[in-house]
Amino acid sequence: MVLKSFVEVHPDSHFPIQNLPYGVFKAEPGSEARPGVAIGDYVLDLSVIASAGLFDGPYLENSDCFNQPTLNKFLGLGQLAWKEARSTLQKLLSAAEPILRDNTSLRQKALLPMDKVQMLLPIAIGDYTDFFASKHHAKNCGLIFRGPENPINPNWFHIPIAYHGRASSIVISGTDIIRPRGQGHPTVNSLPYFGPSRKLDFELEMAAVVGAGNELGKPVDVNEAANHIFGLVLMNDWSARDIQAWEYVPLGPFLGKSFGTTISPWIVTLDALAPFASDAPDQNPPPLPYLAEKEYKNYDISLQVSIVPAGQKDACIISRSNFKHLYWTITQQLAHHTINGCNLRPGDLLGTGTISGPEPDSYGCLLELTWNGQKPLSLGGTTRTFLDDGDEVIFTGCCKGGGYNVGFGRCSGKILPSPP
Amino acid sequence: MVLKSFVEVHPDSHFPIQNLPYGVFKAEPGSEARPGVAIGDYVLDLSVIASAGLFDGPYLENSDCFNQPTLNKFLGLGQLAWKEARSTLQKLLSAAEPILRDNTSLRQKALLPMDKVQMLLPIAIGDYTDFFASKHHAKNCGLIFRGPENPINPNWFHIPIAYHGRASSIVISGTDIIRPRGQGHPTVNSLPYFGPSRKLDFELEMAAVVGAGNELGKPVDVNEAANHIFGLVLMNDWSARDIQAWEYVPLGPFLGKSFGTTISPWIVTLDALAPFASDAPDQNPPPLPYLAEKEYKNYDISLQVSIVPAGQKDACIISRSNFKHLYWTITQQLAHHTINGCNLRPGDLLGTGTISGPEPDSYGCLLELTWNGQKPLSLGGTTRTFLDDGDEVIFTGCCKGGGYNVGFGRCSGKILPSPP
Repeated sequence: MVLKSFVEVHPDSHFPIQNLPYGVFKAEPGSEARPGVAIGDYVLDLSVIASAGLFDGPYLENSDCFNQPTLNKFLGLGQLAWKEARSTLQKLLSAAEPILRDNTSLRQKALLPMDKVQMLLPIAIGDYTDFFASKHHAKNCGLIFRGPENPINPNWFHIPIAYHGRASSIVISGTDIIRPRGQGHPTVNSLPYFGPSRKLDFELEMAAVVGAGNELGKPVDVNEAANHIFGLVLMNDWSARDIQAWEYVPLGPFLGKSFGTTISPWIVTLDALAPFASDAPDQNPPPLPYLAEKEYKNYDISLQVSIVPAGQKDACIISRSNFKHLYWTITQQLAHHTINGCNLRPGDLLGTGTISGPEPDSYGCLLELTWNGQKPLSLGGTTRTFLDDGDEVIFTGCCKGGGYNVGFGRCSGKILPSPP
Repeated sequence: MVLKSFVEVHPDSHFPIQNLPYGVFKAEPGSEARPGVAIGDYVLDLSVIASAGLFDGPYLENSDCFNQPTLNKFLGLGQLAWKEARSTLQKLLSAAEPILRDNTSLRQKALLPMDKVQMLLPIAIGDYTDFFASKHHAKNCGLIFRGPENPINPNWFHIPIAYHGRASSIVISGTDIIRPRGQGHPTVNSLPYFGPSRKLDFELEMAAVVGAGNELGKPVDVNEAANHIFGLVLMNDWSARDIQAWEYVPLGPFLGKSFGTTISPWIVTLDALAPFASDAPDQNPPPLPYLAEKEYKNYDISLQVSIVPAGQKDACIISRSNFKHLYWTITQQLAHHTINGCNLRPGDLLGTGTISGPEPDSYGCLLELTWNGQKPLSLGGTTRTFLDDGDEVIFTGCCKGGGYNVGFGRCSGKILPSPP
């Protein structure tokens, strides 16, 4: 029998009792930020549950981790605390359990309508790393920029390639994105172009949120890596392709990315995703021993990209992809990240890179979908090569269970014009 | 007449009353971290000065910025607060001023022998960016890796090229550095090398510490950029050249750098450096308008690299360079960093990149000094191409004034072997 909550949850909801993703919210504009979990159309205020003494297990009983403006402290407690929280909350919210269900005043304090609260960044992000883990994406980029001979660099098959991204400009879903200005390749008089980006793009990604960290100099074994990951979010790694193309040799992407990165508000835990594990694609050549996993798995998470074109009301779906297409798993990514001794801290974000599938309608960015602007995309009676001012980009992600979903909600952002 | 302190300061000291650099220290292992300034062989405890009510100007009178475990809050107050602190402290420490000089108990509480305290990271570093601002370094790297035709990429002359570095692994001078393990170029059987780095290097850099930040979407004008920089530190951007060479295409350096970066404990303010301003090198082609400065200046800071070879006691000087050789100024770096709208926060670190001078004995890393290992370096009766386990690398930096120095102290680290 499927577990049910006493809170009414629509069958299409992303947030049934099987999910219970974590976020941080403000009940009202002036009030304090605090952690919550999503249940149906409600947010359960974890500071209220903690104050009521309902986290009574050994890891959380005396902790103030739910009286914090971010989830970092909870994340740093490690997986035994996360499992304890999940089992406490699943019990408390279940249809059969009277403690919260039958306590009207506590229920009214603890369960807030989701459409009335403001969601915030759930974590203080110390470092943000972005990987390049989709083979389809790597291949398409190679075909577009280098042509059909060896579109993928030889190192890519041995290394989960990554670069450090900018942590300060990570924003929560719903935040407007200002079109960046910057330099592009020289055109007239051999001077570089300077002005608003003319190739503004989204990148469909997900990101792993680091739970427990590791000490500097102490790598994490790939078979222990899952214990260091708290959960996943949707991520839009907005990209200015013209700025990126001119600046990225030899030190990689910088201003083409650092103007903004959007994440979804709800962190879906690996525990909630466990039923949706799926085999990862074959790796050939086989990974080096430090990247060889006993369990080599992804998750079956359907991803969808829509655009509401400027001036219109309706969203047009432009891509359908899936997390399961990733070549390098998140556990391989984390193990690789630490093999040199680099330390990760609770709340660090590891982006997957653009998640493209094998088919043209499953590509994860406009660069690929329009083949660098050569094949404009039709949507809502208009066309796009790259993003226009006023366009809103919306990602959703969802796992389909037997009679329920485990979903990520949405990750959205709207483009505002550059400053004059 | 040269300003003098009642605290005795040796003429060779880096820390006379003209300097007053900021750091964070612990008086004893168990005690709280707090801000201080260096004066001669002493640290002035700013929490004691603040508690005694001696910061009596409008910006600092009611601030708790010196009762913090980092300088971030003070940095965020902006340049008027920094100038107020400097003038208060120069007055308080001057030979003519009795308030502190003649108050034995306050003096004993406030002035601690530097060799008795433990220095800590002075700032919580939200984001660390590393530039590539020395033309000599860029040219040498190009000659070594790409040959004599166009050793410097065309974009380099228009863009202060940079990448995001790893903030979590930045450590304070004196911290041991564990030799990283990782992949290198394939050799036998076309499999990549895996093991301890065989080309471990230092990079002689300095880094600007961001004071007041900027809002996301609001670039900083290049002529206002100096107001956002609190000061400078020495920085060793340790580099594993073999790991870097194999991983860096196309997304830039990652694990070849992220195993450790060392900074010196004392932040020397731009106010203390002002007397040592020097013209920056000619920029040809001229920079785009957003990078064109009214005042285009560097600072005349003599830099020196020594190595104490493993098993020996004495340091051998292997390079002498100078901050004034940088092609892109720190203000151009900061303005470029924000032109796309990227936000900087107090405590962010902007590394200059390796500071090489024009002569072979002024190169800022072993890659250049030994020409990628082709010309071993003699030191202390032994030779080096890259660093051995047990080697200690020491940077110093100093400006020579009329009768006094404004110095940075030292930035050092010793190499420990890789874990088995």
